[in-house]
Amino acid sequence: MSNFQGLELEKRHTPENDMERGPPTTEAGGTEVGVGSVLRRWKRDDFIRKGSLALRALAFVFSLLSFIIMASNNHGGGKEFGDYEEYRYLLAIAILSSIYTGLQCFRHVHQLSSGKQFVDLKTSALIDFVGDQITAYFLLSSASSAIPITNRMREGADNIFTDSSAAAISMSLLAFISLACSAVVSFHKLSTQSFI
Amino acid sequence: MSNFQGLELEKRHTPENDMERGPPTTEAGGTEVGVGSVLRRWKRDDFIRKGSLALRALAFVFSLLSFIIMASNNHGGGKEFGDYEEYRYLLAIAILSSIYTGLQCFRHVHQLSSGKQFVDLKTSALIDFVGDQITAYFLLSSASSAIPITNRMREGADNIFTDSSAAAISMSLLAFISLACSAVVSFHKLSTQSFI
Repeated sequence: MSNFQGLELEKRHTPENDMERGPPTTEAGGTEVGVGSVLRRWKRDDFIRKGSLALRALAFVFSLLSFIIMASNNHGGGKEFGDYEEYRYLLAIAILSSIYTGLQCFRHVHQLSSGKQFVDLKTSALIDFVGDQITAYFLLSSASSAIPITNRMREGADNIFTDSSAAAISMSLLAFISLACSAVVSFHKLSTQSFI
Repeated sequence: MSNFQGLELEKRHTPENDMERGPPTTEAGGTEVGVGSVLRRWKRDDFIRKGSLALRALAFVFSLLSFIIMASNNHGGGKEFGDYEEYRYLLAIAILSSIYTGLQCFRHVHQLSSGKQFVDLKTSALIDFVGDQITAYFLLSSASSAIPITNRMREGADNIFTDSSAAAISMSLLAFISLACSAVVSFHKLSTQSFI
């Protein structure tokens, strides 16, 4: 778009054009710049929309992996995740995060394909931000609480149980990073929308 | 300010005034509304500035308390915080958070009293947001990691060591809540400033 603008401005300043059309009026210049900025804004909004969808999809995949790995971490003989409250907490948060990010992905894909909104734009941005931020805090909290006990177990023995726990923790941390980025994008959307 | 505006508008629409000054021009109306919105904006900005300073001061007090309580949690005979990596982590983050929030409070008080800026407004808003958010994540992570071991100890015995640990964890959590709110305010400042 900026190339097109540049060409227009160049064309306007040749002497023939000045004779033909008279001096450039501020209104015409203003309109061109206006159209350019609106198009740039649309492009940026589209990029932000797709970026936040991609971040949520990543968070969904990571929390689903964390949920599956931790839920299947039952090997008998004291090697069961249910014996440790940290692992139960991690599993619970991974399930909640999977449900939240899954629903959000569904909603945003539906919105992109049909163009219809379930709720109005401002409420939607508020739900996005609050949901992302709180889920990110929960994911970080559950991963942090499960790290020390896993670390202590791995000092003693390194087996399939501790390895699976470590894998589930890593997946929760990756989901946290995706959702933390997504929360920043959502808050940006929220705070720019309220001033339009 | 809106009361004053209302009076002005009422005054303008009496017949005597209309005869005296002619019909109201849009320029005059526009200027009045403009001044009103600028003053409202200043008031809101001032409120936000003081609010974020208060939140950081709260976070400073809570993290300093957490630091002091955990650092003095040495009672001999296995009841020393240095024996547990979770408590060492909590102490380290409480110290970092105290330094960060202390410096931020000093900077903002200096700015409010002298009106001078160390860095330009946008960089300052960016530093505020990134610092607040990362410190909040660290505080949550350290508190979450220290909760399970304290919980397990308190199931066995409830003594001065576990009570002090629980107090330090609570203070870290309160500091986290203050800084999380402060991060939202900082991001609001950042994203509204970039569009002025």
